[in-house]
Amino acid sequence: MKNKELLSARGILLTDQYQLTMAQLYFRMGLHETPAQFDHFYRSNPDYGVHKSGFAVNAGLAPLVDWLDEAGFGEHEINYLRSQRSSTGDQLFKEDFLSWLKNDFDSKAISLYAMPEGRVVHPNVPIHVVEGPLAVGQIIETGLLNTVNYQTLIATKAARIKQSARGQLVMEFGLRRAQGLGAIQGTRAALIGGADFSSNVGASRVAGFPPKGTHAHSMVQVFMGLGEGELAAFQAYADVYPDDCLLLVDTIDTIESGVPNAIKVFEKLRKTGHKPVGIRLDSGDLAHLSIKAAKLLNDAGFPDVTIVLSNNLDELVIWQIVTQIQEEAERYGVDPNKLIKRLAYGVGTSLITSAGDAALDGVYKLVAIQQDQEWIPTMKISENIDKTLNPGNKRVWRVYDSRGKATADLISLYDEDIQNQKPLILRHPTLENKRRTLESSKIDHIEKLLIPVIHDGKVVYDLPDIPAIRETRQVDIDALDPGVRRLMNPHLYHVSLSQKLWDLKQELKKNARNDLFSG
Amino acid sequence: MKNKELLSARGILLTDQYQLTMAQLYFRMGLHETPAQFDHFYRSNPDYGVHKSGFAVNAGLAPLVDWLDEAGFGEHEINYLRSQRSSTGDQLFKEDFLSWLKNDFDSKAISLYAMPEGRVVHPNVPIHVVEGPLAVGQIIETGLLNTVNYQTLIATKAARIKQSARGQLVMEFGLRRAQGLGAIQGTRAALIGGADFSSNVGASRVAGFPPKGTHAHSMVQVFMGLGEGELAAFQAYADVYPDDCLLLVDTIDTIESGVPNAIKVFEKLRKTGHKPVGIRLDSGDLAHLSIKAAKLLNDAGFPDVTIVLSNNLDELVIWQIVTQIQEEAERYGVDPNKLIKRLAYGVGTSLITSAGDAALDGVYKLVAIQQDQEWIPTMKISENIDKTLNPGNKRVWRVYDSRGKATADLISLYDEDIQNQKPLILRHPTLENKRRTLESSKIDHIEKLLIPVIHDGKVVYDLPDIPAIRETRQVDIDALDPGVRRLMNPHLYHVSLSQKLWDLKQELKKNARNDLFSG
Repeated sequence: MKNKELLSARGILLTDQYQLTMAQLYFRMGLHETPAQFDHFYRSNPDYGVHKSGFAVNAGLAPLVDWLDEAGFGEHEINYLRSQRSSTGDQLFKEDFLSWLKNDFDSKAISLYAMPEGRVVHPNVPIHVVEGPLAVGQIIETGLLNTVNYQTLIATKAARIKQSARGQLVMEFGLRRAQGLGAIQGTRAALIGGADFSSNVGASRVAGFPPKGTHAHSMVQVFMGLGEGELAAFQAYADVYPDDCLLLVDTIDTIESGVPNAIKVFEKLRKTGHKPVGIRLDSGDLAHLSIKAAKLLNDAGFPDVTIVLSNNLDELVIWQIVTQIQEEAERYGVDPNKLIKRLAYGVGTSLITSAGDAALDGVYKLVAIQQDQEWIPTMKISENIDKTLNPGNKRVWRVYDSRGKATADLISLYDEDIQNQKPLILRHPTLENKRRTLESSKIDHIEKLLIPVIHDGKVVYDLPDIPAIRETRQVDIDALDPGVRRLMNPHLYHVSLSQKLWDLKQELKKNARNDLFSG
Repeated sequence: MKNKELLSARGILLTDQYQLTMAQLYFRMGLHETPAQFDHFYRSNPDYGVHKSGFAVNAGLAPLVDWLDEAGFGEHEINYLRSQRSSTGDQLFKEDFLSWLKNDFDSKAISLYAMPEGRVVHPNVPIHVVEGPLAVGQIIETGLLNTVNYQTLIATKAARIKQSARGQLVMEFGLRRAQGLGAIQGTRAALIGGADFSSNVGASRVAGFPPKGTHAHSMVQVFMGLGEGELAAFQAYADVYPDDCLLLVDTIDTIESGVPNAIKVFEKLRKTGHKPVGIRLDSGDLAHLSIKAAKLLNDAGFPDVTIVLSNNLDELVIWQIVTQIQEEAERYGVDPNKLIKRLAYGVGTSLITSAGDAALDGVYKLVAIQQDQEWIPTMKISENIDKTLNPGNKRVWRVYDSRGKATADLISLYDEDIQNQKPLILRHPTLENKRRTLESSKIDHIEKLLIPVIHDGKVVYDLPDIPAIRETRQVDIDALDPGVRRLMNPHLYHVSLSQKLWDLKQELKKNARNDLFSG
């Protein structure tokens, strides 16, 4: 795809066709500028089979704001819509509607309330709330979901990987296995969620982080092909990068060839006053090989050089490696804790694709529409009660218990004074007779979660940079109960409804059913 | 991300850092313009757990050529590399190397041989072969893999879904769940592999296909919120789109409300001379509901309107729906075959993410390097024999048996006269004593698979459009043995080595081991 085509496809036409056909219908009915409210939320945490996540890490807001800023109906877009035909050959989108799109449509003619990036988020809690003209809210739906679903998924996976790495350095290596240009957005999300650096040069540039990487097997093969060997390849690398010398040691045989050759080169570096950086292992039993490599490095007087591990890593594989080192290292005369503290991890495919659960089920639903200046709550009456919407104009709160840990997210109606409600009642979202009652003494504080980002067409939020977003992430993860953070079988974090919202939901469902069976 | 940032990140900097550090090393050693050969291939077919694919469908070549055409080191890229620092604070990339990148680097200064898009491809068979200056071949590796890995993955998934849909219409609906902008490339691949249309407006435009879509639940909710009902919503839709009226019937209750309301609207359309298009079911037991909906539509005199199914479909779910209809429909007085022939499928997440196996393990390996005008084969001696490279400058052939079915792909050295080799010997790629011997009478013809795409900096291949690529795909899929096409437990398609390539591989491995233990 050419750059020109890409820019055209990623503008306002980054949408589903039905958004445009619906928008034209609203225009025809005079409803296109009727104020409407849409909630974006996701239904369930990423589920990697045996290890479902207990939370997610929000990402995608800044790229979303950039997209809204640039997406509009210009001459190219209008001409394309004009060219579309109905099944009888008529123009599908009529001139009056096209003229409205061209002259009056503004992607930012909305109020956007959002959770900041880096915040821990939970299922069914609104993360982005869009309030604005019905047709605008509808047309931007797909681009919003496309931007935030994937980035939240990857930030979450990165947080899990960082956790299983016990805080050691994690590098994102997935560019070659990502969904094409999705890699650029995924890299940013990985940096937000837990990756320290990435190998992706262009995405690192945009994110403001130095890209990382040294050499591949091919470099050693070149030297072998030209009649030299691994040692010559390593020596050449050390000559060019004497202060950044990290060598990939598994092209021939890690223990018999790679590590001994690396040590020879490191010894020369040391003699000339340079500090070797480390080695990388990219195949075989990484736990076992890292122990044997550590032993050789220790014996040669390099107890501190980093050992980078890569090759099909994910949070469980890293967990297994750490566990195996703890059990096995001492038998080889290696201190397991010191070894674990000198490891770094390069994680590719599993991180950038969220392997095991490759999509977050984020949705964007109409929850209210204005009539005669009043908000009318709306909902879809689905067969599945768990999927039934929380209707209406709402607020979202996080309740911290007396330990200072987040104990529940609470969704209320917009006019409820939750911070002064005593005692606080938390209703289960779907089960009639499940509720918690929290006395004031059990509550440290209650935090309002959604903040205004766009108002009246203007960005009113100072978008933080990635280091600041990472701090937000760490504060929020630290505020989770350890049971919720656990990699496997986490505790269920409570997402609750206020009594008033619960009552509204019941009433709407009853009315809808009545309409149905009386109509 | 802003458009400007996107374009910068998707240019030549769509690469891994180590490609650049290696390239500088080659430059320093005077090897950067040494001719080298790299093979791109993948190691195993997408594996969806119980249903591993028996083949893949190649996609991504045209976007790759576009990328090579536009990617280069301009002032922005050079300045960024100039800003990078080594661990001691020195400039990481030196001025002489930057000057070479800026003045002498050309992404297309290579010969590219490739399988055309739409061709059925198999593990370990080179799909793209790059021959050119070592530093160029290295720097373009990541962009090549990023472009073709994902698109081949999605074309393959789409082919499987199209197959399980028994040839019925398949629409790609995945934009909201894709990896951000990967959706644009994924949509194209889906259209190549088996999707008939997509809901993605911008990507459909680029691909030259009309986007498809009608309305969402939100449209019905708007009317309900404003005190009207589903029937009014449907009627409004029919008024605006009388000849394209496809109604989503599950917002309230599919059988009690949605289908009866759709029928009322369809009857009015019929009276005014319009032909209703269909209904869409998006929740519940889709097989059962489609039978009941078909019964109602048949009884109302609409036996031909389409029934579109959507909601978490993939090839197995579609297979199950078809099977259930075959077993259950007659009990409700519905002809199962007629019902199956009026179905269409909207497939979102599973298609665009290749759910179950979200990445193709395509790799790009140095296989030969030139010295004194001669090609020296190279290989990596991995611990795992299955991952050991096929070295050297090679050719790839497809052998068709006397039924005209593809029976094996054969990898040979470049100077072997495979088409006149009698009998033809096919060696197993790794097992010493497994081989097939094919007499001439068993062979219909032998086809050369790689064609020249770029030569001496120029595109020498006339890139076909998507309809032509789809024809290639269909011809190739039809030429597969039905056992290889099977959705579950497919027969293993043979990928074989010529005797000469087998011998070369053994010799190189022996030499490498000797070097190791003598050095």
